Amino acid sequence: MIIMKKDASQEELENVIAEVRRCGLKTDVSKGAFRTIIGLIGDEKSIPFAYFSSLPGVKEARMVETPYKLISREYSNLWQAEGMTREIKVKDIIIGGDEPVFIAGPCAVESKEALMKIAEGAKMAGAQILRGGVYKPRSSVHSFQGLGSAGKDEATEALSWLKEAGERFEMAVMTEVRGESQADLVAEFVDILQVGSRNMYDQDLLATVARKGKPVMYKRHFGASMEEFLSFAEYIAAEGNKDIILCERGIVPVGKGKSFTRYNLDLAAVPIALKETYLPIMVDPSHATGRRDLIYSMSCAAMAAGANGLMVEVHTNPAEALVDASQMITPPELKELIDTCRQINKLVKKH
Amino acid sequence: MIIMKKDASQEELENVIAEVRRCGLKTDVSKGAFRTIIGLIGDEKSIPFAYFSSLPGVKEARMVETPYKLISREYSNLWQAEGMTREIKVKDIIIGGDEPVFIAGPCAVESKEALMKIAEGAKMAGAQILRGGVYKPRSSVHSFQGLGSAGKDEATEALSWLKEAGERFEMAVMTEVRGESQADLVAEFVDILQVGSRNMYDQDLLATVARKGKPVMYKRHFGASMEEFLSFAEYIAAEGNKDIILCERGIVPVGKGKSFTRYNLDLAAVPIALKETYLPIMVDPSHATGRRDLIYSMSCAAMAAGANGLMVEVHTNPAEALVDASQMITPPELKELIDTCRQINKLVKKH
Amino acid sequence: MIIMKKDASQEELENVIAEVRRCGLKTDVSKGAFRTIIGLIGDEKSIPFAYFSSLPGVKEARMVETPYKLISREYSNLWQAEGMTREIKVKDIIIGGDEPVFIAGPCAVESKEALMKIAEGAKMAGAQILRGGVYKPRSSVHSFQGLGSAGKDEATEALSWLKEAGERFEMAVMTEVRGESQADLVAEFVDILQVGSRNMYDQDLLATVARKGKPVMYKRHFGASMEEFLSFAEYIAAEGNKDIILCERGIVPVGKGKSFTRYNLDLAAVPIALKETYLPIMVDPSHATGRRDLIYSMSCAAMAAGANGLMVEVHTNPAEALVDASQMITPPELKELIDTCRQINKLVKKH
Amino acid sequence: MIIMKKDASQEELENVIAEVRRCGLKTDVSKGAFRTIIGLIGDEKSIPFAYFSSLPGVKEARMVETPYKLISREYSNLWQAEGMTREIKVKDIIIGGDEPVFIAGPCAVESKEALMKIAEGAKMAGAQILRGGVYKPRSSVHSFQGLGSAGKDEATEALSWLKEAGERFEMAVMTEVRGESQADLVAEFVDILQVGSRNMYDQDLLATVARKGKPVMYKRHFGASMEEFLSFAEYIAAEGNKDIILCERGIVPVGKGKSFTRYNLDLAAVPIALKETYLPIMVDPSHATGRRDLIYSMSCAAMAAGANGLMVEVHTNPAEALVDASQMITPPELKELIDTCRQINKLVKKH
Repeated sequence: MIIMKKDASQEELENVIAEVRRCGLKTDVSKGAFRTIIGLIGDEKSIPFAYFSSLPGVKEARMVETPYKLISREYSNLWQAEGMTREIKVKDIIIGGDEPVFIAGPCAVESKEALMKIAEGAKMAGAQILRGGVYKPRSSVHSFQGLGSAGKDEATEALSWLKEAGERFEMAVMTEVRGESQADLVAEFVDILQVGSRNMYDQDLLATVARKGKPVMYKRHFGASMEEFLSFAEYIAAEGNKDIILCERGIVPVGKGKSFTRYNLDLAAVPIALKETYLPIMVDPSHATGRRDLIYSMSCAAMAAGANGLMVEVHTNPAEALVDASQMITPPELKELIDTCRQINKLVKKH
Repeated sequence: MIIMKKDASQEELENVIAEVRRCGLKTDVSKGAFRTIIGLIGDEKSIPFAYFSSLPGVKEARMVETPYKLISREYSNLWQAEGMTREIKVKDIIIGGDEPVFIAGPCAVESKEALMKIAEGAKMAGAQILRGGVYKPRSSVHSFQGLGSAGKDEATEALSWLKEAGERFEMAVMTEVRGESQADLVAEFVDILQVGSRNMYDQDLLATVARKGKPVMYKRHFGASMEEFLSFAEYIAAEGNKDIILCERGIVPVGKGKSFTRYNLDLAAVPIALKETYLPIMVDPSHATGRRDLIYSMSCAAMAAGANGLMVEVHTNPAEALVDASQMITPPELKELIDTCRQINKLVKKH
Repeated sequence: MIIMKKDASQEELENVIAEVRRCGLKTDVSKGAFRTIIGLIGDEKSIPFAYFSSLPGVKEARMVETPYKLISREYSNLWQAEGMTREIKVKDIIIGGDEPVFIAGPCAVESKEALMKIAEGAKMAGAQILRGGVYKPRSSVHSFQGLGSAGKDEATEALSWLKEAGERFEMAVMTEVRGESQADLVAEFVDILQVGSRNMYDQDLLATVARKGKPVMYKRHFGASMEEFLSFAEYIAAEGNKDIILCERGIVPVGKGKSFTRYNLDLAAVPIALKETYLPIMVDPSHATGRRDLIYSMSCAAMAAGANGLMVEVHTNPAEALVDASQMITPPELKELIDTCRQINKLVKKH
Repeated sequence: MIIMKKDASQEELENVIAEVRRCGLKTDVSKGAFRTIIGLIGDEKSIPFAYFSSLPGVKEARMVETPYKLISREYSNLWQAEGMTREIKVKDIIIGGDEPVFIAGPCAVESKEALMKIAEGAKMAGAQILRGGVYKPRSSVHSFQGLGSAGKDEATEALSWLKEAGERFEMAVMTEVRGESQADLVAEFVDILQVGSRNMYDQDLLATVARKGKPVMYKRHFGASMEEFLSFAEYIAAEGNKDIILCERGIVPVGKGKSFTRYNLDLAAVPIALKETYLPIMVDPSHATGRRDLIYSMSCAAMAAGANGLMVEVHTNPAEALVDASQMITPPELKELIDTCRQINKLVKKH
């Protein structure tokens, strides 16, 4: 990290940046009211910090060892002082602001008609963002992989339904990019690109998605520590895209015997992410529990832990869903959930 | 499980019980308004259910395979119908009722003076039960093991302070029994006996503690699945003691690298315990996080998940604490926490 | 799964395949001496098995629910009867045969000179396959990502060194494909394509790599159960490529506190893979332990468990390695290890 | 740790010990050929090391922070220099010597006749120590808990059978102590006291068992890190009993889905224990895998990893066993296993 003097000139700044590049690293410049910070992208061991400290305009040059420095609250010029979360704007929705944001929709996009019905229900219930899987990651190659896996035409059609639903019901739309080759097509149609849990460690996919320049919903792997999660989020930031929405969706249960839920929602992830980074964090209680009857409780808990929003699977007729039928709630249930969550958010934010 | 006919006579009931004993099992009789259920303690494979079905007064006799049938909501006569939680009364406090219950105190009892000050602070903040460790389970034999480990006189003295603090501030008191040989002494002084996380699997200790006839605060091991937790709670119930307060206190973090908390609070444990059993469940955010700055968030989350109360470590001067200094909050912080938690409880219970 | 009658005609077989396609599934035909089995790729719920049972030439048609049926020993025509492992031939090396195969090389390809020296040492020690990372998966975007990440020219150059080393020392060569876009280039230069632990769940990458038609070294994720590992290996087989070499490389340590190794080598993976599938399985003790002083013990243990070979990181000057210096052994150490392992293999195979 | 000068007098040594006691700690004196080391039992923070350094006869006094210093190779006078393992002698058997030791027997003692038959078979197969559970730890209170749980008379009888079998077949005998109150009785009858996996963290039980003065077979908990395992073993050593036989018996499987074995045998535990401590370590493949068909492979692997012996469940008629029938092997299978293991031991010890 290199901190410039308050009165450093633009020329001095550019000179430092050029010197950094000569050492084989890239830079991430963050200009604040009182100082400019140059973050270093790459291995800082190649940087002669003593030499950099002596360059004109430099106030301080030192090694930062945390693997997620670009997204960290501690090394950020803009967010550090104010203790604030980055506000990510999508259409007129603000993720990371005072109000929680609700993402809802079916696990998989199955037909235009079903999608429109669900979108309408989600909108009426108070959700602002519509989600729906076109490319579905599945544990078995023999399971339904989403309409997108059937071919490019099917993918394009399903994506266009999502876009149309978003326009018709004034919602932002989001879907998952499961492989690098899908990024271009998906980015044409949706407002937020999702990287799913199973791809959390897939650094080439992260870079490809990041370069599309749209907000990225980034889900934690079910076996990843928080340090790993934040360190891999840094792959997105390193491409210059800091519109990263973190998402906790449950970790692998412990011990022998029945766990009663698909995953264990790790809600301490919420305050930890908010302290360690300036990024907003959401929670997905649907995949975490896999149980419709636990979604209300775990949504309330997530909100009380300080989450910036929720991602909930919803279906007008859960029994009909091709994927994850057992964890879908209906629009009226979603409405009650959103109403209670908004009240809890107010209560804990007063603190 | 043997269900008696509505009009079965006492004699018929006693005959069935006698037959069960002849098969080498014990019984747990639960009389309800409409029917009497005989739970079977032991291996049901030795029971000829067809024969039992034909005994006078028997409506139904069938094998129940769940390892925690005595505490399960499903096989309980009393709690099943009403969907209620068992109310455990300690002094005038009700655990499992409409209002959440707060247990507070230092990790370890260190001196009479410090204990009295903390008890006063906890009481003022709204806590109803005072906790303090006399026998401390520790990962290293070279660490402070609590005053109780110094000898019987020291244990008796520390326990008498607890009792005195309870009387002076009108609180119930609770402490941990770490080994079988401590149960008699501890039971003389306190209202609730605690079995700690590290002893969760210790079935002989569970039976010994259960037989004292006082409510048992039973903490989940950090590596135990919910099924294991409930199955071992059954060792307490099998001694005829169903005043069991379950407690979630965090499970082992996943993945490689830094987890930022000592344990991962598994809050889905709360609604699961409330659905699977008729027992109340509390949450200990202090040991779970090990971080003072996360206790507020995780307490709110636990309450929103439906917990029947919280157990929080509190100290009038956290920096002075011999054990767990980094996770203690002060009485004023506790007061704010309790106030918010009571509001969250109201909000989610309306559902 | 559809089993044809012994005397079924080619026409009958083709008719059944056509019917399967009409149901939206693909087929995997395996002709044995006594019968032909048609494996079904896709969701078998769409198949009317009663109807298929009645088609001419069909002996039996039934649903197979295992998610890894194409690679399973149980449903394989060819390997089931004989209890044998599939032999994968690379140049004149047989993986899965009587003799264990040793893969050795540096973690990352760093320079042509260093690579040639290491290749020579590995060959002299008895290794048959040379490995070297060109694209390195790393937990931090700020760490060295391999020469391949510097650009296509650098990647091509590093890959050509590998190829040249293979030719010069008569070894097969192998490197990792970290992202879909790298598969074409890598496949031009090497004999075996590796999919690393962090990409285990990346189904689009698996399909892309599989379609190159070369043997795939497929490493288990450190958080994956054996069922997940085998289920995702099926993504490779579903593309028609069954030259899959499984590789166990350690799972996440359990519990609190120091584990002393980077991962826990799960050696039961070896006999399980050999019973559940007909694929060969190797073990990577270097990444599993992260400790040079444990590699000998864990290599011997892997061999005694029945592994078909080992993948070991070797360097002529471990202290100089840019990545994973602490887990590299020298060629003379490798020689001793290979010699002992060959003896252990003989001893346990006699059984 | 306080290291005395080579020529320090006995008086000087005693003076230092007295001073340590004045600080509230206990001592563990280890006299070697060249120096005497005083290990400190308790919290070393209470020791003024500068003052101790100045006492007559003291060469060096410094804090040792490892929680398992009494059993560590690093701080041990006797074993450090020679790189040797402590030899624990039971009757004429040496555990920790050049030859591996085999413990075999049924999971639970069921009848005198069955036990005698199994003991004879185990002896013929080459096992030197007979094991059999009298008090069985079980996950469900409704399962068979061993004859010992039926009452003191039954326990005494079952223990006397064990003793008699040991005498008749010239084997040492071993059984588990599950609760503190069982230690006295068990110690009258057997040569080695076992503390099972589920009691690993039970520090009061560890101290009670240690004080019986007999060798302790100490099994790792399935959720414990190696650091925890060694730290709790220190509770035994702190009572002055260093005849501790460590035992790896599998840790909790990772990930979602089927694991195929009950636990994951963590064989790196073997070389780690041998490096970190001077204690011998054995492996229990029966409980680890829970599968008869994997015991041969995992036994060979354990031996190749350097284990000092194995503990294997054996039964003359596996199908009849009341507990763990699926993981029992027969005496002839045991014989083949032992023969191969002895050869592997020779092979790897040559290194």
